[in-house]
Amino acid sequence: MEFTHFNDAGRAYMVEVGDKDDSKRTAVAKGRIEMGAETVEMIKEGMVKKGDVLSVSQIAGIMGAKKTSDLIPMCHNIPLTGVDISFNLKEDGLEIRAEVKTVGKTGVEMEALTAVSITALTVYDMCKSVDKAMVIEEIALLKKTGGKSGDFIRGEGDEKDS
Amino acid sequence: MEFTHFNDAGRAYMVEVGDKDDSKRTAVAKGRIEMGAETVEMIKEGMVKKGDVLSVSQIAGIMGAKKTSDLIPMCHNIPLTGVDISFNLKEDGLEIRAEVKTVGKTGVEMEALTAVSITALTVYDMCKSVDKAMVIEEIALLKKTGGKSGDFIRGEGDEKDS
Amino acid sequence: MEFTHFNDAGRAYMVEVGDKDDSKRTAVAKGRIEMGAETVEMIKEGMVKKGDVLSVSQIAGIMGAKKTSDLIPMCHNIPLTGVDISFNLKEDGLEIRAEVKTVGKTGVEMEALTAVSITALTVYDMCKSVDKAMVIEEIALLKKTGGKSGDFIRGEGDEKDS
Amino acid sequence: MEFTHFNDAGRAYMVEVGDKDDSKRTAVAKGRIEMGAETVEMIKEGMVKKGDVLSVSQIAGIMGAKKTSDLIPMCHNIPLTGVDISFNLKEDGLEIRAEVKTVGKTGVEMEALTAVSITALTVYDMCKSVDKAMVIEEIALLKKTGGKSGDFIRGEGDEKDS
Amino acid sequence: MEFTHFNDAGRAYMVEVGDKDDSKRTAVAKGRIEMGAETVEMIKEGMVKKGDVLSVSQIAGIMGAKKTSDLIPMCHNIPLTGVDISFNLKEDGLEIRAEVKTVGKTGVEMEALTAVSITALTVYDMCKSVDKAMVIEEIALLKKTGGKSGDFIRGEGDEKDS
Amino acid sequence: MEFTHFNDAGRAYMVEVGDKDDSKRTAVAKGRIEMGAETVEMIKEGMVKKGDVLSVSQIAGIMGAKKTSDLIPMCHNIPLTGVDISFNLKEDGLEIRAEVKTVGKTGVEMEALTAVSITALTVYDMCKSVDKAMVIEEIALLKKTGGKSGDFIRGEGDEKDS
Repeated sequence: MEFTHFNDAGRAYMVEVGDKDDSKRTAVAKGRIEMGAETVEMIKEGMVKKGDVLSVSQIAGIMGAKKTSDLIPMCHNIPLTGVDISFNLKEDGLEIRAEVKTVGKTGVEMEALTAVSITALTVYDMCKSVDKAMVIEEIALLKKTGGKSGDFIRGEGDEKDS
Repeated sequence: MEFTHFNDAGRAYMVEVGDKDDSKRTAVAKGRIEMGAETVEMIKEGMVKKGDVLSVSQIAGIMGAKKTSDLIPMCHNIPLTGVDISFNLKEDGLEIRAEVKTVGKTGVEMEALTAVSITALTVYDMCKSVDKAMVIEEIALLKKTGGKSGDFIRGEGDEKDS
Repeated sequence: MEFTHFNDAGRAYMVEVGDKDDSKRTAVAKGRIEMGAETVEMIKEGMVKKGDVLSVSQIAGIMGAKKTSDLIPMCHNIPLTGVDISFNLKEDGLEIRAEVKTVGKTGVEMEALTAVSITALTVYDMCKSVDKAMVIEEIALLKKTGGKSGDFIRGEGDEKDS
Repeated sequence: MEFTHFNDAGRAYMVEVGDKDDSKRTAVAKGRIEMGAETVEMIKEGMVKKGDVLSVSQIAGIMGAKKTSDLIPMCHNIPLTGVDISFNLKEDGLEIRAEVKTVGKTGVEMEALTAVSITALTVYDMCKSVDKAMVIEEIALLKKTGGKSGDFIRGEGDEKDS
Repeated sequence: MEFTHFNDAGRAYMVEVGDKDDSKRTAVAKGRIEMGAETVEMIKEGMVKKGDVLSVSQIAGIMGAKKTSDLIPMCHNIPLTGVDISFNLKEDGLEIRAEVKTVGKTGVEMEALTAVSITALTVYDMCKSVDKAMVIEEIALLKKTGGKSGDFIRGEGDEKDS
Repeated sequence: MEFTHFNDAGRAYMVEVGDKDDSKRTAVAKGRIEMGAETVEMIKEGMVKKGDVLSVSQIAGIMGAKKTSDLIPMCHNIPLTGVDISFNLKEDGLEIRAEVKTVGKTGVEMEALTAVSITALTVYDMCKSVDKAMVIEEIALLKKTGGKSGDFIRGEGDEKDS
């Protein structure tokens, strides 16, 4: 195995994918923000209001997915066919899950991971006036399908400290 | 305490900071990527080459810090006076630290956290051909100084599972 | 009928279009800026100079069309195959028309409407030193072709106050 | 009176404002979307759900305000100190109002008008599956304060067809 | 003398300028495109039309100046107070000159050089259907004033092959 | 021959390419920065360090290639399949070469030329603390293949002053 993002001269480059076929590709990523129980409660209360923390964060995550190739230097710019972000509010934090799809020549792992990261950062921003000690945890790829390199499904052994 | 990013109608807004004085502000954030020992080894080997994983990631992180207000919906767009990203390569992963400074009316916590996040995502992108099971962990604010709301220094009690 | 941009949890998402076929699609939108007769006259005089108001505005509109998916949260990022903006200078204002084309899985209504809007905003910016009371009016979709949802042609009944 | 955005050679340029003092500046703009009563009703029903049309649109408007200088060619890039967008849902449409503030050398009229425009375009995008005949109307500057050119308050005579 | 854009660890960083005073700063850069006499003639003829090559290029250059910190990794993002681009059409090519100003903590050399570069690239794009052999030449800093590092005026000895 | 970027009204537009077939396309561009021998030496010494001038510049060039349609007004936004930038350090300067590929309806000349330009500008930025008199020279298209307009290979006669 070797890093694919370096050319013969040893320099980073955007690897050529022009010979790959277009295929349907999906990637699912997750992440979590640990926060105080009081912060969780405030988010819950806000969900019955017009502009809640999670709405803002989820929109930021979707927009972030579309900016992935602008943020990650060696990432290909590709049209995404769909992005969906969902939440699971727990007692001590918030779980974030992003699913990204495309029909193209490269996978969308980075788009899913970026969507989760920007969503989490926005939750932090929206709640930081009450809780600066929040921690973003376990941003990881759960699943990747499509493309000739084979599917990836995160196994139990991959889970580290949850 | 309450969330400051919502207006009287209950909708999110970019809170007005025009009455605040310009002051020097600093924020330091950290994060970590857990990865296999083999991946760590490959990164180390690459560091003696021309375009190593960490160079690409650190540049992405600095550019990401400048894009923070474009990514986080309620974040103010402010001129940054400095951004510095450093690494600590461990046996089972990589620690990332970002320090951001400004002279302005709002803090730069989000810029420091965004710098760490984009750096970590880029490390993932550069290494994913050999290790898709990497996990981004513990993105957190370490320190914040400047502004009238007082300094924040992450205490021992704030550290959760490291 | 229902809004398509919300998922099962009731949250906004970028609707999946990966199963749609690529097809040629066109959208035409229009808009108008009401302005004083003197402002119209000044624009006309400028048209014989090197850098007239309409040139700047039309370029901004074309560039704006390319930024649509960056501006409209649930809009898909797609490669446009053509953008054309034209003007009709009347006694009391300026009519703007934008035509946008693509070969893809989603329509380009938003791109055409965004092109008109950014063009109009730039006209306002270029003329505001002489006329701050200008009003942007009647930004509307005129036509949409391609895709399986059927064509849309704006009918007489749709025209409201022109 | 003359257009200020052209240099001696008759070409557009970003006018030099370096000699102006920093001062507090405010701009308020408005706009309206005409839509069918059924569409209004659907928006209202959505407001009790998690991710309503207006939340998405208002966030897009705030982010759009921050992109103004990237969209309008001769606009200065300036740090905004606050952006607030509000809605008034009527029987036959939606009124949008945006207030933008800065402390700087140029006014924020374009930022307020851009915020209204992007908000309106996003409402159109979110509702277009049920109503393609919506029309964006009366985007106009209501008020502008700060700076040496004097305040602007939209008079009755300025109102055209509302 | 040493490169200032590297930190103690030998990695690139955005150098901290928070202790510098705000001061008025100007930078002037130039560049040239060599092209066939026929291409020059076609540009001249277009200048009497509505949307000439130079108008499009000059607008692109001004917008490019505002994107400098988004393009050049270690560049500070700063509000520009003015940008002006001028042309000198010669028998065998086009000379471009850009002047950029700010009031701030860092110079605007990169903004002026970027403005010239993007202007030149756009001229190439607009003319490439008739002349692909055009060459962009002599992009250089002519003058830099303001800041404590002293002014820079390009001397005769600096001119290389013009 | 005529300029293709103008519509019937004489205004610039993004030319419609929807009827063209998707095909593999390549473009190669080059450029050069003249600099003092001492600056060359400093770059060489930096190449053995972690974050050298060329790494930063090459990453900026790759990211710049992806931004081409955002910078050049009439350029189509297209997904790139690969970008590779290489260097040749000479006694009195640095040669830059960029190769860009796509599978699409338009060529990638502008992407290759933009990659070279942004790379060169970043080299200037990284070295300007020691050498402000550097000159960017000879940015030119070397080769273009794919598409129905035929291939372009830069001939000897096209080389002007190297």
